Amino acid sequence: MAAEIVNPQGELDEDAIDPAFALHRGGKMAVRATVPVKDADDLSLAYTPGVAKVCSAIAEDPELVYDYTWKSQVVAVVTDGSAVLGLGDIGPEASLPVMEGKAILFKQFGGVDAVPIALDTKDTDEIVDTVVRLAPSFGGVNLEDISAPRCFEIERRLQEKLDIPIFHDDQHGTAVVTLAALRNAALLSGRSLGELRAVISGSGAAGVAIAKILTEAGIGDVAVCDRKGVVSSERTDLTEVKREVAGFTNKAGLSGSLESALAGADVFIGVSGGTVPEGAVSRLAPGAFVFAMANPTPEIHPDVARRYAAVVATGRSDYPNQINNVLAFPGIFAGALQVRASRITEGMKLAAAEALAAVVSDELSAEKVIPSPFDERVAPAVTAAVAAAARAEGVARR
Amino acid sequence: MAAEIVNPQGELDEDAIDPAFALHRGGKMAVRATVPVKDADDLSLAYTPGVAKVCSAIAEDPELVYDYTWKSQVVAVVTDGSAVLGLGDIGPEASLPVMEGKAILFKQFGGVDAVPIALDTKDTDEIVDTVVRLAPSFGGVNLEDISAPRCFEIERRLQEKLDIPIFHDDQHGTAVVTLAALRNAALLSGRSLGELRAVISGSGAAGVAIAKILTEAGIGDVAVCDRKGVVSSERTDLTEVKREVAGFTNKAGLSGSLESALAGADVFIGVSGGTVPEGAVSRLAPGAFVFAMANPTPEIHPDVARRYAAVVATGRSDYPNQINNVLAFPGIFAGALQVRASRITEGMKLAAAEALAAVVSDELSAEKVIPSPFDERVAPAVTAAVAAAARAEGVARR
Repeated sequence: MAAEIVNPQGELDEDAIDPAFALHRGGKMAVRATVPVKDADDLSLAYTPGVAKVCSAIAEDPELVYDYTWKSQVVAVVTDGSAVLGLGDIGPEASLPVMEGKAILFKQFGGVDAVPIALDTKDTDEIVDTVVRLAPSFGGVNLEDISAPRCFEIERRLQEKLDIPIFHDDQHGTAVVTLAALRNAALLSGRSLGELRAVISGSGAAGVAIAKILTEAGIGDVAVCDRKGVVSSERTDLTEVKREVAGFTNKAGLSGSLESALAGADVFIGVSGGTVPEGAVSRLAPGAFVFAMANPTPEIHPDVARRYAAVVATGRSDYPNQINNVLAFPGIFAGALQVRASRITEGMKLAAAEALAAVVSDELSAEKVIPSPFDERVAPAVTAAVAAAARAEGVARR
Repeated sequence: MAAEIVNPQGELDEDAIDPAFALHRGGKMAVRATVPVKDADDLSLAYTPGVAKVCSAIAEDPELVYDYTWKSQVVAVVTDGSAVLGLGDIGPEASLPVMEGKAILFKQFGGVDAVPIALDTKDTDEIVDTVVRLAPSFGGVNLEDISAPRCFEIERRLQEKLDIPIFHDDQHGTAVVTLAALRNAALLSGRSLGELRAVISGSGAAGVAIAKILTEAGIGDVAVCDRKGVVSSERTDLTEVKREVAGFTNKAGLSGSLESALAGADVFIGVSGGTVPEGAVSRLAPGAFVFAMANPTPEIHPDVARRYAAVVATGRSDYPNQINNVLAFPGIFAGALQVRASRITEGMKLAAAEALAAVVSDELSAEKVIPSPFDERVAPAVTAAVAAAARAEGVARR
């Protein structure tokens, strides 16, 4: 072992081995004052006695909290550490680097302040109660890396109890970006969503949300597959969530394996982390779209998929068409916060997907059905579309 | 009404009337990334896939969360909005401007990141449970503006359950600064703390904490007075906390009114918000110290008090000797976080008070028994003293 990767105590020095460790040293974020606090005059406005008048005004008219505090622009990034990346249930402390990463992406891409909140409980009731108690301090809540099926119930119950946007990004962020890419792939091939039959591999948070948004967007048919095959109402082993999925998907009445469902399908969407054999992909309909989004290893290698599919997308940055949530969540929250939306509706998500797709509609190609995460047109377009949709749907407070 | 203080909708425009409102517009703080997130390479280190290795390392060795996240430097500023400034129970939303103010003072004076957490509950059990669940994300908890007697139980139970510093600033910040000022006043007059008899008006969070720290520091005698007079063990109307106070104070066995207790006393400390008549102050012992800390209106006007007392301090910035918590809490947390202290002990508080007093020990006068809040020597001195005390007391983790 080289001397430079051992610290003075003779221990392995991770920072010297891996630039990710070096970058993370001390964390990735900080707070800063946006007003001066350099002298007594500053303090007498930003703190006592000046602050008392502002507090009293909010006590009289609670809506003023949006005008005079950072509530108007700050989101809690809440997790229980139970489904972190592909690492699974690693607990709250170990999830913090991801939550900090999410927080700085919120800031960089959407101008939204965000605070990591990793909770020391995996109990559904306790998570709901805790977030409800935290809510006065935040303008919205981004749920992150909470395992299915608890994530569905937690999101639903929080949205029922609170009048600020609650958004489980692993579901809806992924769904919005997937829909945007699919819209453009269809546009490129001169087809409508209504002509397409899609198969989703994966029935967790992302798979269920994608099935829902595709259905709302008017997909011809969509089937969801779990490890046992197509989720259909004939099955007796379904959870409550999967029974619901069976109810609104699979018009074709498919049953059996993922591979059999893929035969003749127009769209494959992988959010499972599993693999799909080349033979199954080869039996997709001509001109099919393959979105193999498992990370870091796509369900099928994009170079192989390209032999059979007209458009291939992955979750990776080193291949074309990266399905990356950062295209959605910063603008969605920025738009919702801008109009003080009480929730993020289905219409707002559909509007986000349309706006995202439209950014590259004039430059479409099989290699570009979705913008780059660093395309600076994205966040403003999504923000404006989401704010307008919130107003149209009557959930905006201004 | 002048046109410029009415907004385009014809409503009163508070921002135009009062600079405190104008300054608070949009809040007083923001988060920022401390690492670059400008391109795909940056993202691959700060977020996926690079972040996964850091998460896995923390999952294996939880202590690494301090090395690789902002937990090492971030404090939750937690309130329930029940005892905000002199405004009382104004609720969580209306308390947020104070919590944001506190957060930016943490940053400005101690280099400590802080996040306002105003809770939508006043139930002691719920506050404790909530903060315990939040704890993985924070290196410490500053309790703020929580009414007595709940604040005592909440702090005690949280410190029992958590191995990060829990500090109720309304108690201990005030107590530390008061002790520092009293040390210097005694030094100036050539007396020891053991020679002094003090009377505290106010038996809330600050009064109780000041009585405790003065006792630990070796004050000759201290009596605490509530609205009914001296808290003594003869009284039958005492709460549990006041019974405890009666147990360790009032060696002289005083009873009766505050005014009678003041006759011949060496020190008056006001943290009540009430008033004290000039006649009572005139009966203090010669060379007495008057700390009339009610804000914005001191218990007795400092110009009047000065006629009878050798040293006068207040909570106000426009008179000499301002007893301001900002002299204590930033350095106390900075020191505790620096050594990853598991708690803030009595020894650490005493060390903070000594270090704070020592900053101006060479320039003492009746007008300067405590440094200015903007004295840049303060926070480094307090930080170093608290870190050293934590190590000496065995509560430092590094």
